[in-house]
Amino acid sequence: MREFELIQQFFQREQADLLLEEKAQVSVVLGIGDDCALLQVPANKQLAVSVDTLVADVHFPADAKPEDVAERALRTNLSDLAAMGAEPLWFTLALTLPKNSEYVSEEWLRSFSCGLFRTANHYEIVLVGGDTTSGPLSITIQIMGAVESHQALRRDGASIGDFVCVTNYLGDGAAALAVIQNRLVLGSEHQDYLRERFYRPTPRLLESNLLRGIASAALDISDGLVADLNHICEASDLGAVIDVENLPLSPALIAINDLQQARTWALSGGDDYELCFTVSPEKMPELAMLIAEGKIYASVVGEIIAGSGVHCELDGETFELVVQGYQHF
Amino acid sequence: MREFELIQQFFQREQADLLLEEKAQVSVVLGIGDDCALLQVPANKQLAVSVDTLVADVHFPADAKPEDVAERALRTNLSDLAAMGAEPLWFTLALTLPKNSEYVSEEWLRSFSCGLFRTANHYEIVLVGGDTTSGPLSITIQIMGAVESHQALRRDGASIGDFVCVTNYLGDGAAALAVIQNRLVLGSEHQDYLRERFYRPTPRLLESNLLRGIASAALDISDGLVADLNHICEASDLGAVIDVENLPLSPALIAINDLQQARTWALSGGDDYELCFTVSPEKMPELAMLIAEGKIYASVVGEIIAGSGVHCELDGETFELVVQGYQHF
Repeated sequence: MREFELIQQFFQREQADLLLEEKAQVSVVLGIGDDCALLQVPANKQLAVSVDTLVADVHFPADAKPEDVAERALRTNLSDLAAMGAEPLWFTLALTLPKNSEYVSEEWLRSFSCGLFRTANHYEIVLVGGDTTSGPLSITIQIMGAVESHQALRRDGASIGDFVCVTNYLGDGAAALAVIQNRLVLGSEHQDYLRERFYRPTPRLLESNLLRGIASAALDISDGLVADLNHICEASDLGAVIDVENLPLSPALIAINDLQQARTWALSGGDDYELCFTVSPEKMPELAMLIAEGKIYASVVGEIIAGSGVHCELDGETFELVVQGYQHF
Repeated sequence: MREFELIQQFFQREQADLLLEEKAQVSVVLGIGDDCALLQVPANKQLAVSVDTLVADVHFPADAKPEDVAERALRTNLSDLAAMGAEPLWFTLALTLPKNSEYVSEEWLRSFSCGLFRTANHYEIVLVGGDTTSGPLSITIQIMGAVESHQALRRDGASIGDFVCVTNYLGDGAAALAVIQNRLVLGSEHQDYLRERFYRPTPRLLESNLLRGIASAALDISDGLVADLNHICEASDLGAVIDVENLPLSPALIAINDLQQARTWALSGGDDYELCFTVSPEKMPELAMLIAEGKIYASVVGEIIAGSGVHCELDGETFELVVQGYQHF
């Protein structure tokens, strides 16, 4: 298949068929098909940009369902916008496809684009450009959004005494990886839940939208709570302590029946794509209200302290974290 | 090397050392190191975005000098902005690096980042984000720029009777590839010239800046004049005729002593990154003035006609183009 036909066939046409939201019609001056896309950033807003690459057999199994791969790629990128408090608008896709592959075929592309556009539609974002090359299977998505000037959720805003909070559950990403790699067997209900968490993580866009003006710092957890919270600590020139007792664990993670493992995954497993954010004591009532109203599911897991680094405690004692390396496929 | 250290070591630090132009200081609200970059598009301008992937052994030899690879990657992307008449501002870099590679080492990265920042500096663009992953060597750059609303050079503006023009010389890209792959041997001066054209193509930013308001349509030639001019024809719903006699050939291309081959490369070789643009008869005096003043080096190579497709003629006869497939490394 030649590049141009391929783009036409799977990406340009489907997009044209979509009934684009008014937002997209206004913001996309010129989409796929010229040397560049031309985009109109909403007035008084800043452009937020992030890029991520997924490589076959590193970030997903080469024989994974192509629509799962597409959904995960787009959703993990959207998570970066959520971490910034930005509204998603557009994305570009650089797709490297092997020739004569056992897995990648026209059928693969059809399914991939199906998953991609389903997700794009759901989050009202528009594919505005791309590149297809031949080579080992990998997917690079650059996501673009907009945020009001001075309203972005950055990493450098934490203060001593701020509470450290996380959305939803932690550790599911690592447990899901273990299930997918057949290192962990659970009841089918839990396995299905974990697979879903892996391939269709929910970018916390609604939450981050509500957290603008409440959170003092925020990011999304891709490398594990300890490693990512440490980024907030470094950017804010402070330290943090995590109360391991308070880590929110899903029923699936409880079901592995190994609390030490579950907590280790929650602290360092990565791939969770939940938000980690800090909130000052003065702002806590506002967060508590959002939680009480059911608008945000979040837990307090620690506190920002003077010093540096992230310290984990359980029952007043240091919790020794045995960091496990990332398990490649 | 862990991802974060790697980014720190080679990309974040060097960038911070640069004395950023005022342009960058104003436009980059938040650079590398958070979940997203935050960027300020200049007032009343539209964002222009393009993405390109270079894969080792497909788009460049895996043992090519890393600084050459970096320069080429950034320059070919800048060419897309030139093709649009946009001013370059920022870029992101997604770098996939093999572990335990024969070629890719810390030294490789040092040299790669050296070439990258030299080019970025030269064109006054800022690296604002990135991702490093392990996997087969490939480089995806997304370039971003700005253009006044309604001033972009698009593909769909050609009219019957417009002249078809190109900048500089055509066919050098394909000849360079032949030299690099040892399929063509020339005098060292010509070989050096061609290697330079391959690894350090000049994005025609100055030219496209002058052509806004003069050219009716434009793009950059990456797939070969015939294939790319055909994109203008399709977008404008017209055809074109190329006068093969008038194709601008460099001294190096003349030196291969095979005019048929030289013309074939000029028509279909690709990798030239020159501009192909159309100009109405009314606007031709303005272009002629720019050429006479030495501000643009450009040639008229054909005309836009009714119908569809691109026809090549030599001495009033159809010139049969034997299209050669792209030679992978």
